[in-house]
Amino acid sequence: MTTTKKHTWRTRLHEIIYEADTPMGKLFDIILLILILVSIVLVMLESVKGIDLKYHTFLNVGEWIITIFFTLEYIARIVTVKKPSSYIFSFYGIIDFLSTIPLYLSFILVGSNVLLTVRALRLLRVFRILKVTRYIGESNKLAKALKDSRAKIFVFLFAVLIIAIISGTLMYLIEGEESGFNSIPVSVYWCIVTLTTVGFGDIAPVTPVGQLLAAVIMIMGYGIIAVPTGIVSAEYTKAGKSDTPQQDDPNYVHVNTQACHNCGVSKHRDDAEYCHRCGTNLADYEGDDETSG
Amino acid sequence: MTTTKKHTWRTRLHEIIYEADTPMGKLFDIILLILILVSIVLVMLESVKGIDLKYHTFLNVGEWIITIFFTLEYIARIVTVKKPSSYIFSFYGIIDFLSTIPLYLSFILVGSNVLLTVRALRLLRVFRILKVTRYIGESNKLAKALKDSRAKIFVFLFAVLIIAIISGTLMYLIEGEESGFNSIPVSVYWCIVTLTTVGFGDIAPVTPVGQLLAAVIMIMGYGIIAVPTGIVSAEYTKAGKSDTPQQDDPNYVHVNTQACHNCGVSKHRDDAEYCHRCGTNLADYEGDDETSG
Amino acid sequence: MTTTKKHTWRTRLHEIIYEADTPMGKLFDIILLILILVSIVLVMLESVKGIDLKYHTFLNVGEWIITIFFTLEYIARIVTVKKPSSYIFSFYGIIDFLSTIPLYLSFILVGSNVLLTVRALRLLRVFRILKVTRYIGESNKLAKALKDSRAKIFVFLFAVLIIAIISGTLMYLIEGEESGFNSIPVSVYWCIVTLTTVGFGDIAPVTPVGQLLAAVIMIMGYGIIAVPTGIVSAEYTKAGKSDTPQQDDPNYVHVNTQACHNCGVSKHRDDAEYCHRCGTNLADYEGDDETSG
Amino acid sequence: MTTTKKHTWRTRLHEIIYEADTPMGKLFDIILLILILVSIVLVMLESVKGIDLKYHTFLNVGEWIITIFFTLEYIARIVTVKKPSSYIFSFYGIIDFLSTIPLYLSFILVGSNVLLTVRALRLLRVFRILKVTRYIGESNKLAKALKDSRAKIFVFLFAVLIIAIISGTLMYLIEGEESGFNSIPVSVYWCIVTLTTVGFGDIAPVTPVGQLLAAVIMIMGYGIIAVPTGIVSAEYTKAGKSDTPQQDDPNYVHVNTQACHNCGVSKHRDDAEYCHRCGTNLADYEGDDETSG
Repeated sequence: MTTTKKHTWRTRLHEIIYEADTPMGKLFDIILLILILVSIVLVMLESVKGIDLKYHTFLNVGEWIITIFFTLEYIARIVTVKKPSSYIFSFYGIIDFLSTIPLYLSFILVGSNVLLTVRALRLLRVFRILKVTRYIGESNKLAKALKDSRAKIFVFLFAVLIIAIISGTLMYLIEGEESGFNSIPVSVYWCIVTLTTVGFGDIAPVTPVGQLLAAVIMIMGYGIIAVPTGIVSAEYTKAGKSDTPQQDDPNYVHVNTQACHNCGVSKHRDDAEYCHRCGTNLADYEGDDETSG
Repeated sequence: MTTTKKHTWRTRLHEIIYEADTPMGKLFDIILLILILVSIVLVMLESVKGIDLKYHTFLNVGEWIITIFFTLEYIARIVTVKKPSSYIFSFYGIIDFLSTIPLYLSFILVGSNVLLTVRALRLLRVFRILKVTRYIGESNKLAKALKDSRAKIFVFLFAVLIIAIISGTLMYLIEGEESGFNSIPVSVYWCIVTLTTVGFGDIAPVTPVGQLLAAVIMIMGYGIIAVPTGIVSAEYTKAGKSDTPQQDDPNYVHVNTQACHNCGVSKHRDDAEYCHRCGTNLADYEGDDETSG
Repeated sequence: MTTTKKHTWRTRLHEIIYEADTPMGKLFDIILLILILVSIVLVMLESVKGIDLKYHTFLNVGEWIITIFFTLEYIARIVTVKKPSSYIFSFYGIIDFLSTIPLYLSFILVGSNVLLTVRALRLLRVFRILKVTRYIGESNKLAKALKDSRAKIFVFLFAVLIIAIISGTLMYLIEGEESGFNSIPVSVYWCIVTLTTVGFGDIAPVTPVGQLLAAVIMIMGYGIIAVPTGIVSAEYTKAGKSDTPQQDDPNYVHVNTQACHNCGVSKHRDDAEYCHRCGTNLADYEGDDETSG
Repeated sequence: MTTTKKHTWRTRLHEIIYEADTPMGKLFDIILLILILVSIVLVMLESVKGIDLKYHTFLNVGEWIITIFFTLEYIARIVTVKKPSSYIFSFYGIIDFLSTIPLYLSFILVGSNVLLTVRALRLLRVFRILKVTRYIGESNKLAKALKDSRAKIFVFLFAVLIIAIISGTLMYLIEGEESGFNSIPVSVYWCIVTLTTVGFGDIAPVTPVGQLLAAVIMIMGYGIIAVPTGIVSAEYTKAGKSDTPQQDDPNYVHVNTQACHNCGVSKHRDDAEYCHRCGTNLADYEGDDETSG
């Protein structure tokens, strides 16, 4: 029965690649993370002139080895999922693709290999290895806090934008080109630099009136910084209150990294028998095949 | 009956221009916002030397087209309101006027067209298009928080001012003109730059004593930054608590963008029959005229 | 009865100078504040080279007029209080003295007149004019919050100091004198500039290792900034909770600016008959004298 | 009985060196702290060229005197503890060793004496002198808050890292070497400088696209700064709630600085009779010996 055998092999690979609950799956994810980190370091070092001149070949070979490994992994991910399209167009699927392609593109587009740093996004997989539910809980809480604060954040960004445009125009009129306020866009940029209290100092007002207005902008920025902080604090304080009861909440169940072999969705309940998205039986991959075999 | 016909036309225009509940009104507001954004971008680009040299005519024509549209809109707003003075001297009326006039002024005052960026304030109309009550709620909450914190903010700004004046004088005495601390006003400006943690670096202490005092000012600023943030956080935490009950509060009713055709006031209750400011019957614009006709 | 007459005159002057509840007292305080502001502006302008050259005589005369007024006021304050020492060595007494003396000193010590900006502290009197209890309440709350957070703030400043010393030494060893890290004190100064997120940029690391350590210091500073903010937020949230009940609290009474004519202490209860510090009868200044006369 | 005598002497020394509850112990700790501060100042001053040239011998002798005192103290600490290894490998034991060795090393390794600033860590002993329980409570609260926020802080640092890597690469591609963005590591460093709102300005974008991206990074940084602050605020607000009851909590007992003469562990309960780590009888050092003598 070749199909069963093949399926067994596919099932095992699926478990290793997609899940982090088995020792092999965990090991695979750890190796993956190390390779991602190494590849980011390689790309970074290659951009440093002095190092690139000395070790160009070494860095280049390293990049190629890792990229080939990632390519194989990408193919394996497609092969072991029943419905490849659901993986390919998922968030991680797109990230995985973007993390693999730049080096191949470098044959056509010189220098495109620096785009390999997009692999940093693959580091998000680290959450799969760590005690999962805890971090999922944190991210969910953060995501919920952000979603609840949408209107507040929108109002806030809007205020910053309007203040920056109007103050920027005024600074452009007051300071003029001698001080570096060459145009309104540059002045608006300077206003954002000042409102956010970053203050590079590449452009700085020199006229008394300009410095007075700058002082007003700074104090405004100082006040504005309080708004997002206050919002997040309030959200967290609220979220923190419903923290402990949530664990005793009967509506709260433990999930794991087990991934559906059909559509690739993970975060299934520990006692889940069927995928909550596509309804595939999670337990018997082979069983499924046996009936068809 | 010409009057009725004219009134019908005026009523419709009033609905389109002033309200955002009908499809036409919504469309009008969206077009308006896009034009505002385009006109701000045009003014900004014109201030960039390189771009202005190349596309001066194009940018100029664009500005004029939008300004003429805004002029017509301004006239239409005055015509369709029964009591024009209530619109002209309202917040939005003044903004609309200030957003239209600079280009006409540029015939007399060269360069006054950069003031067109005051149009950024017109972007506040965006709140009319968005799900209104939600954002009104947020702004009200923010306004209330600010109003409640008035005394706190006054005390805080006062403290910053006094610290800046005294530290500024000390820095002027310690550092002197070699380090850029040319006068007390400049030193006070530097103190505000430092207290707000902006830190341009255009002026920086060079003497050991000056650097020591600067370190003290910075740590003070670091502590002071905590005060407005703490205030806003506490206000938001308080506001957040009375959040949910407010929606069930019988004193809380849904309002819409429908504007009175007499005085222009909006945010009427959904079931309002008469304007809450001038008592005009909101429902029958014509009805009103029919009795008079 | 010359004594009674003189006392009546002294009592009235006492009321005008020390209290802000009568129209005359309020007017006096407002004039005082305006003069303080004017004198600070005069001193500031005098420090600006260009302005001083043009208007030196005008500025100098202005300073002298205000200083003479302040001197008379200082004498009046001493004369109208029964126990002058209690005023002279009070907080405001010392500030008033320090605000008057620098100009006289300028005969001996050239340039000491810039110290007149210490007058900024006299602006604290503004709280006497404003609706008093409210601001007293705010300041008391702030003072209480600071007092309660003493231990926290001490631990925090201690941590900043230790981190700055150790990181500063490391940066001095790593970067050396070429990058501006001339000595350990300068490096510690740089660390404080960085930890507080001010970042002047007059000194900045240039070696890779230095930049790496700088990045770590920045992220630490970013984290440390959260601590005082969190402390203040928590204190304010706590204080905010006991906010409303406090006004109904039978232990809370309304106080006014009426000052004891013996020891100068103010903030007496509205229904106070005797000074809460020295026991002098507040109501009858003359009555007291009549018995002695 | 020589042993008893010797033990008495050792016991007393143990009490003086390790504990801060007796007057002698307190005095010893205060002298120690002053010496630590003096020695840090000496090392700092020695690093300043101008001062070192003038006072080299004086500074050097001072350093040696303090170091010899610290060496004697270190030996005394080892001698008076029954189980020296438990002190040597404790946190303070290692700090004490590292604070003593650099000057001796300076015979072999020139310049290693600047490492003496590690003595700053010895300042942590200040908590032994101050009203102990209060500060222990604060540090415990801080430590607990940090421990509880571990997952949140990890997620946060992770986000900062990923944003910095990706934005850094983009800035490197956009700005290039003319603006100082020489390599990806330097660009990532710049991103961290910007995200944390430090903004040195040694490197700053000059192209319009670079400035636009920088503005986005700044506003993101502005938003991100809210996250740790919100976390700490929420933790403190939570901790603050359980503040007062904790003192009435029967599970909360008063501890003191009394240290076990066997293993050196301190913070024993006031009524402790045996060390909570090694079980040694705390009360009778001699008693223990008498039975063995």
